[in-house]
Amino acid sequence: MTGRQDNPSGEDSLIARYFRPLATDPGAFALSDDAAILRADDADIVVTTDAIVEGVHFLPDDPPDTIARKALRVNLSDLAAKGAVPSGFVLTLALRQAAASWLEPFARALGEDASAFACPLLGGDTVATPGPLMISITAFGRVPAGRMVRRSGARPGDLVVVSGTIGDAALGLDVLKRGAVAAALAGNPAAQAALVARYRVPQPRNALAAALRDHADAAMDVSDGLAGDLAKLCAASGVSARIDLGSLPWSAEAALLLACGAVRPELLVSGGDDYEVLCTIPGQQWPAFAAEAGQARVVVTAIGTVLAGASAPRFVDAQGHEIALQRLSYSHF
Amino acid sequence: MTGRQDNPSGEDSLIARYFRPLATDPGAFALSDDAAILRADDADIVVTTDAIVEGVHFLPDDPPDTIARKALRVNLSDLAAKGAVPSGFVLTLALRQAAASWLEPFARALGEDASAFACPLLGGDTVATPGPLMISITAFGRVPAGRMVRRSGARPGDLVVVSGTIGDAALGLDVLKRGAVAAALAGNPAAQAALVARYRVPQPRNALAAALRDHADAAMDVSDGLAGDLAKLCAASGVSARIDLGSLPWSAEAALLLACGAVRPELLVSGGDDYEVLCTIPGQQWPAFAAEAGQARVVVTAIGTVLAGASAPRFVDAQGHEIALQRLSYSHF
Repeated sequence: MTGRQDNPSGEDSLIARYFRPLATDPGAFALSDDAAILRADDADIVVTTDAIVEGVHFLPDDPPDTIARKALRVNLSDLAAKGAVPSGFVLTLALRQAAASWLEPFARALGEDASAFACPLLGGDTVATPGPLMISITAFGRVPAGRMVRRSGARPGDLVVVSGTIGDAALGLDVLKRGAVAAALAGNPAAQAALVARYRVPQPRNALAAALRDHADAAMDVSDGLAGDLAKLCAASGVSARIDLGSLPWSAEAALLLACGAVRPELLVSGGDDYEVLCTIPGQQWPAFAAEAGQARVVVTAIGTVLAGASAPRFVDAQGHEIALQRLSYSHF
Repeated sequence: MTGRQDNPSGEDSLIARYFRPLATDPGAFALSDDAAILRADDADIVVTTDAIVEGVHFLPDDPPDTIARKALRVNLSDLAAKGAVPSGFVLTLALRQAAASWLEPFARALGEDASAFACPLLGGDTVATPGPLMISITAFGRVPAGRMVRRSGARPGDLVVVSGTIGDAALGLDVLKRGAVAAALAGNPAAQAALVARYRVPQPRNALAAALRDHADAAMDVSDGLAGDLAKLCAASGVSARIDLGSLPWSAEAALLLACGAVRPELLVSGGDDYEVLCTIPGQQWPAFAAEAGQARVVVTAIGTVLAGASAPRFVDAQGHEIALQRLSYSHF
């Protein structure tokens, strides 16, 4: 391949064809420069970066459109939990080959999400790799100066709150890997599909950002498993917590699997890929937070209480017995 | 591995041990949160992202310290060419395993460069991969509002200028691959080492940033080969150019190899990994630019002239004959 002006290199024409249409922000210069401009406009710029790797965060036969959505949404989820409004992202795409049959649906879905979440592509780098596909995204958001919601602000007495339902993505991954969940749901393809969709395409809670800024003492997104991520939030805040397992929000599919004994709650609270918001809300703020979440059409559930102390968060069943968790979350190493 | 609070996960302890010391900016929150804060302070924030992949941008047996420096410096080089002052970076590190023998020198060298270039680590993501090592960095810099140096500002009559010397990294890669250059320099290990160092550890020209802002009409860094990158700059600016091959700045090693016929100039102007600045300077600004570059201890050389027109840039030898280049630059696809 050559790089002649009248016959641009494969890399340049790939970028022009698939990704230039996504670069709608003037600071992206239509991807024609080496860098982009991000204007802060008196806000703080929140920066987050998350990568997904084939065979680790998504499966080799996952459809390219769901891979694109997951790559962007795991970052949007971080911005949501920090109370930030998305403002753009840069993309690093490591590909074995530049196949139109993969790139076209990937770029189309990425563009649809960029548009839906008002988070345009600002720039990126496309590189060849002999190994697994990898998509690394750095996303930017804005918060009023000094207002980013930290992990470290939880205070004893706060309610522990999560959005959506917990554990579905871990169940979906089990379905894709033909594990116990797939067996238990053998006659229920709709339930299987619902869980797989939760694994492949997270639903970031950006609609909650303003309510989190206004009411939360601390927040993070649940990406590696509720139990482990709660432990991180508690450690950062210098507090402990007690979680009532009976109050955890389960999807209909998860409730069914729990009722028939096919899975145990431990799997649901230690599985990754939820991309829900975990936050702590002072009791007197809870009615207002819940009302604003309702207006944003996001279900939020109080699942426990922040306690003083430095011990690991405890998960307690309906009889008041503590559940010992062997594994709190996913760790890469 | 577990994620218990008193026994943090491998991933968390890896980050704490190797990378927290690099997170010296208050906006990095000591890597204890999900996101970092970037404050613009009335400047424009310049964003650039570049990834390097094992087997593509560096070799499997390259030392970890040089891999770290290259990963950061290819991004610093983009900031330099845009006239921006580095302000920080986020790191995505895809590793097969978390070996201290690799991570320790990698993180130490990264920290040394982050300190030397005043570009602290703001955040990142560390993921497992079954494939090649990959390091993706998104770097941030500041320019006074509206002052980023674009690719698209070149005007007919401008001088075409490059920093440093051209082609050495391509020669260094050939040495590492035991090609013709290695054979020609078989008795000269010092020359081999100098060229290999140019491939492994670029010297980004951040010292030129202010002079570029003040004097350049257009600039970019040379990463994929001078000929191809000049073609991109000309295309973005809607101009052409004539380059005098005889005026190109060669290192002593490159000059030796050219003199003995071991390599042809085409290799040097189409090889990648130079990470020098390519810019266009109005003639009346050239004395001031050259003087400021001298104060910054960066050699700059005028190698040709920007011309009106849309044809591809021409490379002309001492006899006025155009050299036809079969390959202008490196393309991943």
